[in-house]
Amino acid sequence: RRRFGEHGFAGATIRAIAADAGVDPALVLHYYGSKADLFAASVRMPVSVDDTIGPLATTEPEELGEAILRTIAGLWADPQALDAWLGLIRSAVTDERAAAMLREFVSSAILAPVAERLGAEGAAYRVSLVASQIVGLGIARHALRIEPLASASIDELAAAVAPTLQRYLTGDIASGDR
Amino acid sequence: RRRFGEHGFAGATIRAIAADAGVDPALVLHYYGSKADLFAASVRMPVSVDDTIGPLATTEPEELGEAILRTIAGLWADPQALDAWLGLIRSAVTDERAAAMLREFVSSAILAPVAERLGAEGAAYRVSLVASQIVGLGIARHALRIEPLASASIDELAAAVAPTLQRYLTGDIASGDR
Repeated sequence: RRRFGEHGFAGATIRAIAADAGVDPALVLHYYGSKADLFAASVRMPVSVDDTIGPLATTEPEELGEAILRTIAGLWADPQALDAWLGLIRSAVTDERAAAMLREFVSSAILAPVAERLGAEGAAYRVSLVASQIVGLGIARHALRIEPLASASIDELAAAVAPTLQRYLTGDIASGDR
Repeated sequence: RRRFGEHGFAGATIRAIAADAGVDPALVLHYYGSKADLFAASVRMPVSVDDTIGPLATTEPEELGEAILRTIAGLWADPQALDAWLGLIRSAVTDERAAAMLREFVSSAILAPVAERLGAEGAAYRVSLVASQIVGLGIARHALRIEPLASASIDELAAAVAPTLQRYLTGDIASGDR
């Protein structure tokens, strides 16, 4: 997880990961099959998707914006989870295979359940807009570290960004009738 | 530009770039001094910052959200500019030096002028929120290619995202008085 977090999917080598663990590279491949599967296993570990997304299933639709923002910002406050998250993003923007992996993961494990909870027309588009703001917020705050955003408190973020997420989820986002 | 775009700052080597150009690596270093300076030169070329940001200086504050969204989405529609933009982001999320470079570039060349145009209290924070949505939109749409966002038209994006940018710039974003 640390290697992927620091070097991304493409930059982390099986050789280096095996060396960190004090084992032969062949042993890593024996147990995980491929670098992609090792990566998948590594990003599954720090955060349980069910534990993270689960509570959103009982959140009222009109409170989802703030709930999502606080859930994600809470994740980022955990250094291990933040590393895993940044590793995923780094890998996905530099490696098409990792991008496909993340796209599939995000769509099936995160977007689809939230869209189902939402039940609104165009829910998939709405949730992909939410994903765009979440991804950008995490990158601007924790990878690019653009100030003063990087130093803003979670409450400040909730005040500024939760209404954006809420509007994407349940507000008027169509052209022509703004 | 193509090498940086495909491999990011860390992954593109002077050796490979020199080979692409059919010259000796020493010649590249002679003219550009360092990989960082070569990178800076490469990202300056495809898009003139003045040409891009300049028109925003005469845009009414209440129209900045849509103007920024359409300016950036227009950039992304140019394959060469999109490659350069993605290369910048790839480099910045995988390399601290490139992140510092982009942070300085974004702050001095983009955020500061827009914040000055805005003139509002907390303008730097407001503009950094705009940057977070722009960065995330570009990544979700063009690097992760999350659907249906990736296939949305510029008009659809303007309807959905421009109000977000406008609220960040001139709306109520403070905690306590939402």
